[in-house]
Amino acid sequence: MNKSQKIFAMLKEKRLIALLTPKTADECLIAYETLQPLGIVLEIAFRSEAAMDGIKAVLNKYPDALILAGTVMMADQAEAAIHTGVAGIVSADYIADVVDVCVKYDILSIPGGISDAGKQLVQKAKLYGCDLTALKEKYPYQWIYKLFPAISDGHSNMGLAKAWKGPFKGLNIVYTGGVTLDNLAEVVKSDPEGIFCGSALTKSIDEPEKMRMEAKKWLEMIHGDKKI
Amino acid sequence: MNKSQKIFAMLKEKRLIALLTPKTADECLIAYETLQPLGIVLEIAFRSEAAMDGIKAVLNKYPDALILAGTVMMADQAEAAIHTGVAGIVSADYIADVVDVCVKYDILSIPGGISDAGKQLVQKAKLYGCDLTALKEKYPYQWIYKLFPAISDGHSNMGLAKAWKGPFKGLNIVYTGGVTLDNLAEVVKSDPEGIFCGSALTKSIDEPEKMRMEAKKWLEMIHGDKKI
Amino acid sequence: MNKSQKIFAMLKEKRLIALLTPKTADECLIAYETLQPLGIVLEIAFRSEAAMDGIKAVLNKYPDALILAGTVMMADQAEAAIHTGVAGIVSADYIADVVDVCVKYDILSIPGGISDAGKQLVQKAKLYGCDLTALKEKYPYQWIYKLFPAISDGHSNMGLAKAWKGPFKGLNIVYTGGVTLDNLAEVVKSDPEGIFCGSALTKSIDEPEKMRMEAKKWLEMIHGDKKI
Repeated sequence: MNKSQKIFAMLKEKRLIALLTPKTADECLIAYETLQPLGIVLEIAFRSEAAMDGIKAVLNKYPDALILAGTVMMADQAEAAIHTGVAGIVSADYIADVVDVCVKYDILSIPGGISDAGKQLVQKAKLYGCDLTALKEKYPYQWIYKLFPAISDGHSNMGLAKAWKGPFKGLNIVYTGGVTLDNLAEVVKSDPEGIFCGSALTKSIDEPEKMRMEAKKWLEMIHGDKKI
Repeated sequence: MNKSQKIFAMLKEKRLIALLTPKTADECLIAYETLQPLGIVLEIAFRSEAAMDGIKAVLNKYPDALILAGTVMMADQAEAAIHTGVAGIVSADYIADVVDVCVKYDILSIPGGISDAGKQLVQKAKLYGCDLTALKEKYPYQWIYKLFPAISDGHSNMGLAKAWKGPFKGLNIVYTGGVTLDNLAEVVKSDPEGIFCGSALTKSIDEPEKMRMEAKKWLEMIHGDKKI
Repeated sequence: MNKSQKIFAMLKEKRLIALLTPKTADECLIAYETLQPLGIVLEIAFRSEAAMDGIKAVLNKYPDALILAGTVMMADQAEAAIHTGVAGIVSADYIADVVDVCVKYDILSIPGGISDAGKQLVQKAKLYGCDLTALKEKYPYQWIYKLFPAISDGHSNMGLAKAWKGPFKGLNIVYTGGVTLDNLAEVVKSDPEGIFCGSALTKSIDEPEKMRMEAKKWLEMIHGDKKI
């Protein structure tokens, strides 16, 4: 399995991504060392200058680490992140150039938004030279889209994801934006197979033990009585 | 009149599309023979493998049949459907490649989504070599967009369609996703010239007479006391 | 400062755009002469045939006038409006061709919609040959997007704008569609740095003094006790 396949398996199992906009490279290491043992995927947002250094710090220390580069908006950022060894690329919109780069390296690509779920699947299929059915079967880690924002100002967009699963059966949805411990139960109920992403998970980055305890609460909320 | 002009006239008159994801080619024939006499347009969704066979079955038996191919996401699907003789192409997102093919053959193209109403009109105008005013006048069947999802998880997106009609006056909207007999009255009230599409219309495909009676209820709800 | 920088400064100060779909060229002159002294930016919508004549009438009489061309959907419309001397281009969707033309002339470009905030920033950055951070710093008047519709059928989309400000910090938002004096207080509260646009501001175009008084009410609602 390549890194994208491995991180996708992790996303399907624990269904939780912790989003970190690092102030320092060290924060990335702390977040990774705290959350990875729980099976939680770390996404490091490129909206911070410390992001690239943080990604390198994690991958230098743990070459097999499975981490996501987030808020990747330009093709050269995607190239740089992939060459550093990230397992996947997340964006805050659907940027065709970024998807191009990801498919070129066969790397998990998670574009985001509220309206381009189909477009990005079609682009991926075209780039792999197959149809949508084959994309889903051969490259299941590309059968994914980020609903962003999932919740904004109290208003939920989650119904959109339900609708997309009509034409794009089994589409994996990452719910990002506005997801907190307070509304997680409701969000999980709306998509019992969803993958959830929150920056709230890393807000206690200065107190790793507290962060770890909070992360466990998220996992309990998602998986309930099931063995996690 | 070509097939696209004819089906557009039908859509403007009865304003109802029955969406079928066929399990067998035969189901397409049953749905067509039951709903066509009522003036209801049949859309056959490509998300099923029986779709292409079903479209062929209808068109072999009724060469003048006016049917829509739905969930068409790739250019080659659009080409194939058009060569089979469909009167129009519906998509579950706005896919520029699919619109390219449709305009090449001057076939009704109904891209869908919640955000690309203007983009697809501009692309169509460019391809026809005209401006938006001329597009609306010369190719009225292309002055159309599918609001998808119209309703999702109880939340209505229909206000978007109202807003689009500011810059794109008289835009024909197909309301798809979440439209059922229970909310049809409300949906119709929101757009008294709207075109409505529901898969609920074909859920009784195994009992054609029941399907026919239900379809009549939809028509009554849309047209009220007016002669239908 | 070029015209785009000047109109952007005006937008940042009074934060109000009056949208006019002119019936005659004269109406543009009346609206400009009434609203410009209040610091309100006039947007003349291309959805009317009198628009181009009206823009020319204003710019012939006031060569330094700072006005926006609105509902610009095609590249050649953008070219024509820019050659006439407008200070910026507003669209009712994100049309990549229109953004191309605007950046070519380094003219303020305000694409609109509910889902392409990031795409258009990325396109602008690519065309200027820089990254998003540099775009924001060097071309702050391009760090902008129009939320359209802001409000539709009583439903607010303003939470989307809040969410975008996560990945696109400090993004300037123009709130268009459904904004009236009745809901302005609520809209302003949702984004205390927002720019607001309403066609309601020009509905009394036949009674300029009434239009002026109404416009002052909008300004008071936006700026409250602050000196305006």
